[in-house]
Amino acid sequence: MADGQVIEGVYLSDAFDLHALYGHALTPHADQIRLRHPHEIDDPEEIRFALCWRPADDAFLPYPNLRLANSIAAGVDSIINCPSLPAEALVARVRDEDQGDVMAGFAAWHVIWHHRNMRHHIVHEAKHEWARLIPSTTKPPRETPVGILGFGLMGRAIARAVTAMGFPVIAAVRNTPAEDVPGVRFESGEGAAQRVAEQAAILINVLPLTGETRGLLNLDFFNRMPEGAALIQLGRGEHLIEADLVRALDSGRIASASLDVFDVEPLPKEHPFWADERILVTPHQAGDCSPHTMAEQLVRAAQAVVAGEIPETVVDRSNGY
Amino acid sequence: MADGQVIEGVYLSDAFDLHALYGHALTPHADQIRLRHPHEIDDPEEIRFALCWRPADDAFLPYPNLRLANSIAAGVDSIINCPSLPAEALVARVRDEDQGDVMAGFAAWHVIWHHRNMRHHIVHEAKHEWARLIPSTTKPPRETPVGILGFGLMGRAIARAVTAMGFPVIAAVRNTPAEDVPGVRFESGEGAAQRVAEQAAILINVLPLTGETRGLLNLDFFNRMPEGAALIQLGRGEHLIEADLVRALDSGRIASASLDVFDVEPLPKEHPFWADERILVTPHQAGDCSPHTMAEQLVRAAQAVVAGEIPETVVDRSNGY
Repeated sequence: MADGQVIEGVYLSDAFDLHALYGHALTPHADQIRLRHPHEIDDPEEIRFALCWRPADDAFLPYPNLRLANSIAAGVDSIINCPSLPAEALVARVRDEDQGDVMAGFAAWHVIWHHRNMRHHIVHEAKHEWARLIPSTTKPPRETPVGILGFGLMGRAIARAVTAMGFPVIAAVRNTPAEDVPGVRFESGEGAAQRVAEQAAILINVLPLTGETRGLLNLDFFNRMPEGAALIQLGRGEHLIEADLVRALDSGRIASASLDVFDVEPLPKEHPFWADERILVTPHQAGDCSPHTMAEQLVRAAQAVVAGEIPETVVDRSNGY
Repeated sequence: MADGQVIEGVYLSDAFDLHALYGHALTPHADQIRLRHPHEIDDPEEIRFALCWRPADDAFLPYPNLRLANSIAAGVDSIINCPSLPAEALVARVRDEDQGDVMAGFAAWHVIWHHRNMRHHIVHEAKHEWARLIPSTTKPPRETPVGILGFGLMGRAIARAVTAMGFPVIAAVRNTPAEDVPGVRFESGEGAAQRVAEQAAILINVLPLTGETRGLLNLDFFNRMPEGAALIQLGRGEHLIEADLVRALDSGRIASASLDVFDVEPLPKEHPFWADERILVTPHQAGDCSPHTMAEQLVRAAQAVVAGEIPETVVDRSNGY
C-alpha cells in the first residue's frame, strides 16, 4: 500500500447506526481512514478493517482482506463470539483513559440512587409533592457494604469513587492484589463472586463476559444476597438471567436494581423492565468512550495492521477480553 | 436538680413535626429527657431545652428557664436568627461523623445528574424508550471543573467524592489551607466565590448562611459562570435569589439546577420550580443526620447545660455557624 493511501473500513453493527453516532469524530481522519456501511461498499476486497458493535453472525463474510475488528468501546465479546470473524483478524478495543472515571461516576450515581432512594424524590417531584424520607430508613455509608464484581480498570475506578463516599467495598478478584487498596477488602479464588454477594448491600457487576461469567447473576446467586439488597448491572446482558431477577425482586431478596445492559439491545418497548419501578433502565450508557479517543485509536490500529504490525489496543482473543 | 431526673424539653419547629420525624430515636432516652410539643406543656417554666428547626419568631417566648436550643442538624442559622431566642441560651448543632459522607454522596449524585444528563434517561424510561445520548455531548470528567462554595466538613467530603470520580475541583475558602488537598485548587479572600463561579462547569453551594452569604447566588453571580453551567444548591434557601435563577436558566447561562433548599419549606405545591424540567427539586434531604446520633448528642447537651457546663456541640453565636 502506498504511503498516505486511505484505508478502507466498514461499520458492522446489528444494534446501532455507527455512522450516526461516530461519523462526526471520524471526519477529521478522512485522509487516513474511510468507513462506510456494508450496502455502500462496491468492492468488499478493499475492506481492511471493521468498526464493530454486536455484529450480525454473518457480518464478516463478505470481506476476505479484513485484518482488524475494532470495538467502539472496551467490550469485545460480541466480536470475539461472532461466528464469521476471520481466524486471522486481530480484535482491538478502545483504551480510553477517561473511561474508568466515566464508568465510576455512573456507578456511584446508581449506588446513591439505591442508598438514598432517589426514585422516591423523582416520583414525588413529578407530583409536585414535598415528601421527605425519614432519615433513619437509611443506614450511613460506613454500614452499607458495596460489592464489586470485576476489578480491572473499571472496577478499580468504581472502588475509588465509592470508597470516597464512605462506603466499604468488597471486591471479587481472581488473585488478591499484592498492594492494599484503601477501603477495599478482597474475596479471591473459587466462589469469590458468591462470597461478595453474601456481604453486599449494593452489588455492582462490571465483569467481562466469558464462559465462566455468563449467567452468573441467577436466582441461586441472588438468594445469597442480604435481604433488601440492590443490584447495579453494568457488565453484559448475558451475565443476568432476567427472569431470576424478577423472582428475586418479587421475593424481596433484591429491593431494587439498575440495569444498563440487556440480552436484547435496544431493550424492546414491550419489555416489562421498563414499567417496573423497582428497576431503573438506562440504554447501555455507563462507560461511553470518547468518540475522539476511539477515532484516534482506530486510525492507529488500522495503520498498524496494514503495515503488518500489532496494534497497541489489541486484545487476547483466547482470553475473551 | 436531683440526679437522674428527666430533663424537660420542647419541640420548636414551624416546618416539620419533629416528634413524627425523631420520636422513635428519642424514646430510648425517655429516662433522661422528655420532649413535647408546645401545646402539650402545662408548665413552661419546667422547659430547659428545645429541639429546633426553623422555629417561629416568637417560639422561645413562653420558656423563661430554657438554656439550650439544639438544632436537628448541622445548620443553626434559623435558631440564631430567631428574634425570641434568649440571649443567655446556648445553641448547639449535631456533629454527625457520617454527615460528611452522607452529604458527599448526595452532592456526587447531583454532579453526575447534570454531567451525564440523567434526567434524559428518567424521562425516556417513563416512555419505555431506548434513547442513547451521543457520547460526545459530554466532556470527560477531567475537562469538567466542579466548583465548591464552602470548604468545611461538608465541602471537604464533597471534594473527596468528586475528585475520586475524576473531576477537578476548585474551592472557595477564606484562607488557603496549609496542606494541599489532592485534585483541589483554591480561590481565597475577597471575591473567591465569584472566581470559582467563573471557572465551574458545575457549582455546588454548601456555604453556611451568614450576612455575607445571604443572596450570594444572584444574577450577577450567575452571569459570571460559563455558558451552560449547572448549579447544585445544598446550602440554605436564603443564599439563592430564586427569580435570578429562572433568569439565568432562561438565558441559557445556567443549563440545569438541583435545589435541595428553598426560601419557603416545604416548597409550596404551586411553586413553578416543581414543573420546571431544568430544575431537580429534592425536599431538604442532602445532609440528613442520623436521628440516633442527634438524640445521643441532644441528651449530652441537655445534661451539660443543666449541670452548668458547656456542651461539646455548642456553636459560636457571634460567628453565625
